[in-house]
Amino acid sequence: MKDVILKGAVCHTPEPGVLDARESAFVVCQDGVCRGVFDTLPESFRGLPVKDCGDCLILPGLTDLHIHAPQFTFRGTGMDRELLDWLDRYTFPEEMRYADGDYARRAYAMFADRMLKSATTRAVIFATVHRRATVTLMALMERTGLISYVGKVNMDRDAPPALTERDADAAAADTAGWLNAVERLELNRTRPILTPRFIPCCSETLLRELSEIRRVYDLPVQSHLSENPGEIELVKKLMPDARFYGDGYDRYGLFGGEAKTVMAHCVWSPPAEVERIRKNGVWVAHCPTSNMNLASGIAPVRRYLEKGLRVGLGSDVAGGHSESLFSVITDALQASKLYWRYVDETAKPLAFAEAFYLASCGGGSFFGKVGCFAEGYEFDALVLDDGEMPHPRPLSAAERLERAVYLGLDQTGLRAKYVAGRCIFEKG
Amino acid sequence: MKDVILKGAVCHTPEPGVLDARESAFVVCQDGVCRGVFDTLPESFRGLPVKDCGDCLILPGLTDLHIHAPQFTFRGTGMDRELLDWLDRYTFPEEMRYADGDYARRAYAMFADRMLKSATTRAVIFATVHRRATVTLMALMERTGLISYVGKVNMDRDAPPALTERDADAAAADTAGWLNAVERLELNRTRPILTPRFIPCCSETLLRELSEIRRVYDLPVQSHLSENPGEIELVKKLMPDARFYGDGYDRYGLFGGEAKTVMAHCVWSPPAEVERIRKNGVWVAHCPTSNMNLASGIAPVRRYLEKGLRVGLGSDVAGGHSESLFSVITDALQASKLYWRYVDETAKPLAFAEAFYLASCGGGSFFGKVGCFAEGYEFDALVLDDGEMPHPRPLSAAERLERAVYLGLDQTGLRAKYVAGRCIFEKG
Repeated sequence: MKDVILKGAVCHTPEPGVLDARESAFVVCQDGVCRGVFDTLPESFRGLPVKDCGDCLILPGLTDLHIHAPQFTFRGTGMDRELLDWLDRYTFPEEMRYADGDYARRAYAMFADRMLKSATTRAVIFATVHRRATVTLMALMERTGLISYVGKVNMDRDAPPALTERDADAAAADTAGWLNAVERLELNRTRPILTPRFIPCCSETLLRELSEIRRVYDLPVQSHLSENPGEIELVKKLMPDARFYGDGYDRYGLFGGEAKTVMAHCVWSPPAEVERIRKNGVWVAHCPTSNMNLASGIAPVRRYLEKGLRVGLGSDVAGGHSESLFSVITDALQASKLYWRYVDETAKPLAFAEAFYLASCGGGSFFGKVGCFAEGYEFDALVLDDGEMPHPRPLSAAERLERAVYLGLDQTGLRAKYVAGRCIFEKG
Repeated sequence: MKDVILKGAVCHTPEPGVLDARESAFVVCQDGVCRGVFDTLPESFRGLPVKDCGDCLILPGLTDLHIHAPQFTFRGTGMDRELLDWLDRYTFPEEMRYADGDYARRAYAMFADRMLKSATTRAVIFATVHRRATVTLMALMERTGLISYVGKVNMDRDAPPALTERDADAAAADTAGWLNAVERLELNRTRPILTPRFIPCCSETLLRELSEIRRVYDLPVQSHLSENPGEIELVKKLMPDARFYGDGYDRYGLFGGEAKTVMAHCVWSPPAEVERIRKNGVWVAHCPTSNMNLASGIAPVRRYLEKGLRVGLGSDVAGGHSESLFSVITDALQASKLYWRYVDETAKPLAFAEAFYLASCGGGSFFGKVGCFAEGYEFDALVLDDGEMPHPRPLSAAERLERAVYLGLDQTGLRAKYVAGRCIFEKG
C-alpha cells in the first residue's frame, strides 16, 4: 500500500539553495520511504506500481512549523493592530469560543479540511487552552492523514479569565489529563506538543510545572519568541532576571537541548539569544507574512542560515492571513529583499531555491528525514497541475515551479498528496 | 441594455478610508451610470431589472494603473535581479518575441483572457515597441469589454537593437502610424496612451518628438519614475541638466499639466519631485508587489496621501508576479507597515479601507468618475462569491470583504463583472 512510483516533472531541493528540477522523471516510494529520483526507472523498481502524472509538477510536501488552528476562522481580517493589541482585540475573543464543543468541532473541521487540501503535509499546530477542543482537533487532524504536532495551550496570566488556567497546579493537571486522553485515542499521525503560549501569559510557576511534564512525557515544545518590540519590553519587565527572552524558556528546560523545540518569529532576537538558539538546536519558525501583517518586522533569515540555525517556515495563521505555504515562500523572498534594502545591505536576499528549501527540508527536519526526495527520506509528495496557466512557449520545470509558487497554485492546482507514503488526497 | 440593479452585500469606499459595507442592499445602474446604494429600493427605480446576487459581495471594479501586457507570459519567474539587470536578462529578451505577429497574438490573447476574468475593470497598459503587435493587443482588449489605455512603447537607446527605434524620426513616424491604425479600428473602450519607456531608454531628441505627437493627438502619457536607486543614478548621468528624474519628462511636456500622466513607482522621489508631481497633477501608480520583488524598496504612500497626490495601484506585471489587484492591495498594506517599522515611524500604515480606495477610486480617477457607487459614477462592478470559504459564525460584509481581498478571492470567486454599465463577464 505504501509503494508507488510517480512520473512527472519532479522538483525538489535536496540541499539548501540547490534546486533539482527535471522535465520528466520518476520518484520512487517503497514502504513509505523515498528511494530517489531517476530519469530512467532502474530495473530493481520495475515491479512497483507507476502512476503517470502526465505533465504535472511533483514536489515534496511542505511543513508548516507554526499555525494556530483556532485562528483559521478569522484569517484575513483584523489586520490593523500590532501583536499585543491584536491578541486582546481579535484573538482572545475568538479563542474563548472553543470552550463550546460544538463550535470547536465545526470550526476545526473546516481547518482540517483546508489542511487536507493544502500543500502542507506536516504541521506544528497551536490549539487553545481547552483540553476537550484540543482532543477534537487532534482526532480531526488524524483523519486527514497529515502528520502533525498539536498543542493544548498553557497560559495562566494576562489574558481574559476564560482563557487562563486557574493556577499552575490546575494547568498541570489539565495538561496531564489532555495527554492521557490523547494517549487513549491511539493516534498514529498526530502527536502532542507542549505549548506555553508565550512568557507574557505564563508565570514562572507554570513554566516550572510544564518543565516537569515535558520531562515525564518526553514532549517537544513550541512557543513564540521575540516577535514584537512591545512584547519584548513586557517580557523584560515580567522576567527581569532572564538574560534575554529565550533565556526565560531555557531556564525551565523549554528551549531545545533534550527538549526538541520550535520557536516562532525570532524577528528581534539579540546576538546572545541567536547564539543560544544555535547552541540548543532550537528550530526557528520564520513567519514573514504574519510579521508583515502585524507590523512586527523582518527576521534576519540570511544571518540565521549563515550561523547554521535550523530554520523553517510558518504560516502563523491568523497573524498570517493564509495557510498557503506557497504564499509564505513568496513573502519570505520579498521580506528578505526589503531587509537587504532597508536594514542590512550585507544580508543577501534569499534565492528562490533557498526559500523553497526552508518550506520543505528546513521545516521538515523537525519531523526527521522529511522534505525532499533523496534516498531514505519519508515520502511526502504533492502532485500539482499547472495546466490552467497557459503559456505561449514551453517553460522549464524550474520556471513552472517558481511560477506556481508565486501565483499560489497550491490553492487550486493540487491533484494528489502523499504523506509518509500514503495517498491522503486525490482529485479528478 | 445598460440598466441594472444588483442586490447583495454591497461594499465600496466613497471617500478615502471610509468603507461603506452593507449586509444587503441595492446598487442602481441607469444608462451605465451609478445612481447610488440603497437599503430599500426607491420607487423611482422600480421599473429597472433587478439581479439578485444572493449573498454575494458586490464591489466596485478596480483599476490597474500600471501593467505590462507582454510580460504577463513570464510573471512569477525570474525574481532574482534588480531592475536594470532584470530588464536585460528577462524582460527585453521576452519583449523581442513580439516582433512575431503569431506569438504576439497568442500571448496577448492569454493576457486579455486573464484581464477579462480578473477584478480589473480599467487598466493602463504598456505593450512593446512593436506597432503591429500593439494594435493586436488593443483589438483583443476591446473585445474583453474592459476600458483601457494601451501604449506602444518608445525607446531609442540602451536596449537590444531589436527593441530600439532607429532614431527619433523613425520613432515618431512609427508612433504616428500606430495612432492612425488605431483610429481606423474605431475602438470604443481602448484608447492609445503615449509611452516613453523611461528616460534611460529615451534620448532627449525622442522625448522632444513625443512631446509634439502628444500635443497633436492630445494623448495622455505613462512612464516609469524613480523606481530604483541604480536607475536614478543612471538618469542623473544621462540628463545632468534635469533637476530631478521627473523634471526630465516635465521639460518635454510629458509630466502632467495639460498632458494627463501616470508615473509608475515613485519609490525614491526627492521632495522637489514630489512637489512637481503634486503641482502638475500627475497620478502615481504605486506598485508594492513589484517594488518588493525587484528589491526596489517601498514608496512612501502615506506621505503622498497627506500631500494630496493622486495615487492608485499598479500590479506592474511582471515586476509584480500577479495581475490580481486583491493581492496588490494586500501587498500595499504590508509594505506600508514595514515602511512604518523600518523607515519612518511617523508614517502611519495604510488602513484596509485606504488601500481599497487606492485600488478603486484612486486609480479609477484616471478614467474620470470611476471607482465607487456614488451617484454619477460610471458603473463598474464585481460580483464575488465567497461561499467556498465557510465560517462557523456569520461574518459582517466588511469582514467578508477584507478576507476576500487577503485570500485573493478574485482568482476564483468572480461571478460577474460590469464595466460602464455593460456586463462583460458572467459565470455559473
